[in-house]
Amino acid sequence: MTSTTVTSDVPALVFVDDLAEGFGAPARPFHGASPFHRADPASTPIDVLDLGITRGDGVFETAGVNHGHPQAIDAHLARMARSAALLDLPAPRIEVWRRAVQEAIEAWGSDGHGAAKLIYTRGIEGTGVPTGWVYVWAEEPEGPIERRDGITVVLLDRGYRSDVAKTSPWLLQGAKTLSYALNQATLREAQRRGADDAVYTSTDGFLLEGPHASLILRFGDEFITPGTDQGILKGTTQGDAFDWLEGQGYGVGARQVRVEEFAAADAAWLVSSVRCAVPITRVDDREMAIDRQVTDGLNAFLLERDC
Amino acid sequence: MTSTTVTSDVPALVFVDDLAEGFGAPARPFHGASPFHRADPASTPIDVLDLGITRGDGVFETAGVNHGHPQAIDAHLARMARSAALLDLPAPRIEVWRRAVQEAIEAWGSDGHGAAKLIYTRGIEGTGVPTGWVYVWAEEPEGPIERRDGITVVLLDRGYRSDVAKTSPWLLQGAKTLSYALNQATLREAQRRGADDAVYTSTDGFLLEGPHASLILRFGDEFITPGTDQGILKGTTQGDAFDWLEGQGYGVGARQVRVEEFAAADAAWLVSSVRCAVPITRVDDREMAIDRQVTDGLNAFLLERDC
Repeated sequence: MTSTTVTSDVPALVFVDDLAEGFGAPARPFHGASPFHRADPASTPIDVLDLGITRGDGVFETAGVNHGHPQAIDAHLARMARSAALLDLPAPRIEVWRRAVQEAIEAWGSDGHGAAKLIYTRGIEGTGVPTGWVYVWAEEPEGPIERRDGITVVLLDRGYRSDVAKTSPWLLQGAKTLSYALNQATLREAQRRGADDAVYTSTDGFLLEGPHASLILRFGDEFITPGTDQGILKGTTQGDAFDWLEGQGYGVGARQVRVEEFAAADAAWLVSSVRCAVPITRVDDREMAIDRQVTDGLNAFLLERDC
Repeated sequence: MTSTTVTSDVPALVFVDDLAEGFGAPARPFHGASPFHRADPASTPIDVLDLGITRGDGVFETAGVNHGHPQAIDAHLARMARSAALLDLPAPRIEVWRRAVQEAIEAWGSDGHGAAKLIYTRGIEGTGVPTGWVYVWAEEPEGPIERRDGITVVLLDRGYRSDVAKTSPWLLQGAKTLSYALNQATLREAQRRGADDAVYTSTDGFLLEGPHASLILRFGDEFITPGTDQGILKGTTQGDAFDWLEGQGYGVGARQVRVEEFAAADAAWLVSSVRCAVPITRVDDREMAIDRQVTDGLNAFLLERDC
């Protein structure tokens, strides 16, 4: 055990033993009948040889948690399975993961706002046995101030063409992997440029997504998100947002959006599981108005959805 | 502590406490006077919230170890510092890391062939305190068979232009990060295509590097490696190889190499710290002859260098 003085304050950690097709059964006798088990986060349990750390070789999901329920969990689990397939990881046992998330929420024991992270790695180098765990933490009940006041963004090149997922699938665009160093560096670059966040663009001139969020643009009564055939993630929150918008009578659609179209948008948001819908108030040097009515309505819905 | 039945067999693990400028001193009283401390790898010491695992947010180096000495350690430490700078990590304390590597080799206690991995992450989420460790493992004394018999490679698109490091530094090309999921996926794609390994190409038609190795090509009495201004790593083994080749009277140089030039090469190698110089016997569908004399001479030098 490390004697480092810094320790984790994750409130609830659950290891997923029977995590994937073909894996898990040998470990079960040690944990009784359950396909997962609670663990003590203070005992720092990740192996130094886990490929999740030595190679960023794994996938993850982050789901909002409200009133004891993970939000959009079906969509998160489906995306995790899709990411795992893109990485040639064994198919995750969806029902086991779903129950493990619920177990972690119960271990957390709060009825408030929080978030659950699901991590699924290729496991300890040389063993061929994948590793998985879920943890839950509390979020501010009021949510981030930016949900109300908005954020400024800069457009930053992702360096790839919009057809990269089709031409070069080994670049894993469209998979939510643990290899997020570039996403983190992109956020730092945005901050260096005086902005809060970034929107990636393709080398052939299309808007893509944020480093940690999906992009939604409003053009009149139409809401548009960049299509996922461009090597970007299928947004779980974006999906729920579009359901709500349709219910409000708006049109919704996914397509390629040229960079120049940002200037014609009436409003825009970065949406993600924990921050929900954050309005964009500036793109590079151009100011944008906050669409207060849609922002507030959408966030009220996203924060209270129980699905 | 996790009760998973799979455990690490890392023989020697050392945590680096005083790992970077501005960090480490508060932890020192717990470890006596030393700026690092040995740890038990079986106690699985990485925190679930370490950004190295949640975001692949860190850098690494792998150095060969021979007769109790890490090879090309100056070059590895210099590259780690360069990678850290690209990731805006605090400057690593090079002398502490150098001594930590030696400590891990002593803990390993063998005079044979091995390898040392240095990992330096952004640390546990929310603390702002980076994390670092070194571990050492044994390699086959005879080395991989491919060092003698060679490997087949396929050319695979990296998806970026060759000037990406200049235009878009936030994409971290040229940094050796923990976000290696793409490199691993590229190797799997190569194997799916019936090859052993891959050489990346840029979208504008230049040869770059392997997912885990540098490329060296022979044209007559000239040995050429793709220049590092194209967003690729400065090869530590390639550097030593060029020193040896120059000593043998050959010319060496780094420049842009067009994909078509592969066909004109007399021989080619992928070179890296642990595998050393591995001759390439096929590129896509084109067979290449092994340059036995240079391959054997170079590997004899690389395996016995004591620097």
